[in-house]
Order: sequence, then structure tokens, then C-alpha cells
Amino acid sequence: MDRQYSSDLFERAVDELAKLPGVGRKSALRLVLHTLRMDVEAVDRLAGAIRSLRHDVRYCKVCHNISEDEVCEICRSNNRDHSTICVVENIQDVMAIEATNQYNGLYHVLGGVISPMDGVGPGDLNINSLVERTEGGRVSEVILALSSTMEGDTTNYFISRKLAKTEGLRLTVLARGMSVNDELQYTDEMTLGRSIVNRVEYR
Amino acid sequence: MDRQYSSDLFERAVDELAKLPGVGRKSALRLVLHTLRMDVEAVDRLAGAIRSLRHDVRYCKVCHNISEDEVCEICRSNNRDHSTICVVENIQDVMAIEATNQYNGLYHVLGGVISPMDGVGPGDLNINSLVERTEGGRVSEVILALSSTMEGDTTNYFISRKLAKTEGLRLTVLARGMSVNDELQYTDEMTLGRSIVNRVEYR
Repeated sequence: MDRQYSSDLFERAVDELAKLPGVGRKSALRLVLHTLRMDVEAVDRLAGAIRSLRHDVRYCKVCHNISEDEVCEICRSNNRDHSTICVVENIQDVMAIEATNQYNGLYHVLGGVISPMDGVGPGDLNINSLVERTEGGRVSEVILALSSTMEGDTTNYFISRKLAKTEGLRLTVLARGMSVNDELQYTDEMTLGRSIVNRVEYR
Repeated sequence: MDRQYSSDLFERAVDELAKLPGVGRKSALRLVLHTLRMDVEAVDRLAGAIRSLRHDVRYCKVCHNISEDEVCEICRSNNRDHSTICVVENIQDVMAIEATNQYNGLYHVLGGVISPMDGVGPGDLNINSLVERTEGGRVSEVILALSSTMEGDTTNYFISRKLAKTEGLRLTVLARGMSVNDELQYTDEMTLGRSIVNRVEYR
């Protein structure tokens, strides 16, 4: 036996699964053994869902979020506030904000943040299409909802410069401060400092 | 938005992945997002490996281990000791023993252990084919390598009764005792008791 497992099919499935993030060879092996016990139909559904996700997925041509059609449900919705655009890094962020049920505007997915270290420049991001969306006077507010990192801050600054020419546009960022339920003594000093500086009226 | 994600394809892939053991919805979401960034070819390889594992897998007609052919590599090998059969519960156990590099005989995969609680009787296991393999006088030893549980012990007993008629057959079980590197004070008393009773010469 010069191979670890006695079947090429088996080994190939373990190899492919082990390439996924967070799946080691032990987990891959467990998944493969599970697959062997699954109904053929269930396995076909799983493999089909993975394949068609990648093959058939589309991105909204307006906001670049994933979509089933040319323009996504959010951008098409009449129940949403089309005067507000929330700029996020990726589609996870759209999901995270949607999950709060606190936002009813539109989105704009940049596809990353400016990061010279990773070779990501402004030209690699969906910034021009954002600028275009703010032209015409229909948009009154752009919320910059990027990560609170150097790359996020750089991207915020770049976008704010790009949008500076757009008249009557309000540019906002997410509030920073202590998390809800955070204990003060365990909050890092940067966050605590910002929370003090940006304190709000007690209602 | 009455759905959690803005794409049916997306939701379907998350649903299917979340059904796998050890994969929650958060992990499934992470895998789906990763899949979206993968090369189309890599996604096809992954989906294809899963599909063909289930569709094309075969089991050795001699030992019931997974195999690419009618008879597996181990059973076909001339470098292995065909007079010894190690009886195990499942294919993971074959892999575990192969990984030790300490065993050079053949295997017999039962496909489970007798467990009335789970509705598994002797007839559900590959016991008759084991008995057949020991007939003809070619096999001199059967190693019972089942779990050290009540179900494993019951199965051992059942098999030992079935093989009692086979003349000249040595029936052995795996040694039980403290694990290598185990500290004595943390070893459970059953195991420690067996280790004392079955003590061996200090070499």
C-alpha cells in the first residue's frame, strides 16, 4: 500500500474537501465517510448546489451584491429607501447589516478595501460605479460601513475625496464605541476613547 | 426580503452544506462564500469528487472494505499475510490500523456491531462471509478488533461461537491497557485493572 486510503475516489474526495477553509484532513475524512452513507439523491443535491452556485451565480449590476437577476431584489424593491447607499466591503457585510433589520436603504459592494500590501488598488474596487450612482441627485446619503482598520480608513478617505464634488450629499460612517453588553474594564482603550469623545445624550 | 440571503442558489448551497455533520450554518456560509471565489475548475473538481465518490464507490467482495475493483488492493496483495484476518467494525478502522504500519494481514469489515438498541442484529453484519473465509484451512488466525464496548463484546462472543467449529483457528483480541504516554493516576480503573491482570514481561 503506497497510498493512505485504498481507493482513488476516496482519496480524491478527501483531497478536494481538505482544500476548503477550516476543513482539515480529519474533517474531510469524516465528511467523506458520511457521504458514503448518504442517499444518492442527497449527494447529487449537495454536489449540484455547489456546482450551480459557482456556475449560475450573478452579481447585481447596480450594487454588485449577489443576485439571481441582472438587478438584485434590494435594488429593485419599492419598499426600500433609494436615497441612501451603504458602502460595504463584501456580500457578507450586506448579510450582516440585513440581519440587524435596522437599515432600509440600498447597498454598494466594493469587493474589498484599498490595501497596497495585498496589491489591491482603487481600480480593483467598485468605486467608479459608486460615484456614478451618486450622480443625478437621487442619492442624499452615502454611509461608509467599512472595517475600522487602516485599509478601511484609507478606502473611506479615497471615497470621500471622490464624492467631494457631488453636491448636497451627506457622507456618514458607522458609530464606533463599546459593544452592547461590553464591560467597560475589558474594552480596549482606543474604543473606549472614541466612546467618550463621541458620547451621546442620555435619553 | 422574506429570505435570509438574496439568492436562491446561495441559500440552497448553504442549506445543503449545513446538513453535513459538524458543519453549522455559519461554517456553511463561510464555505459558500469561499466557493464563490474559487476557480470554476476547482469547484467542478470538488463537486465531481463528491458525486463520483458516492456513485462509483465499490466494496471489496471479499473483505467489504472500500475498493476500486471487485477485490480490493489489500486482498489482492501478494505482500500480505493471507493467513490472518483482522475483523473490524468499519472502513475507518481499516485506515486506523493501516496507519500504524504494524499489521500485514487481511481485513474483514463487519459493517457495524450487534446492537439490539439500534436494531442491528447479526444478520445485518458481514458475519456469514467471515465464516466462509475461514473455511478451507487457509486462515490460521482471526483477530477480533472491535470496540471495547458492550456491543463490541457481544459481537466478539457471537463471532467466537460461529467460528468455534473451525478447527485449528486461533482467535485473538486486541490488547487492552493503558495508552502509551498515559499517566497512571488518570487512567480509569477498568483499564488499569485490565493492565494489571494482563501484565507482560519487562523486556
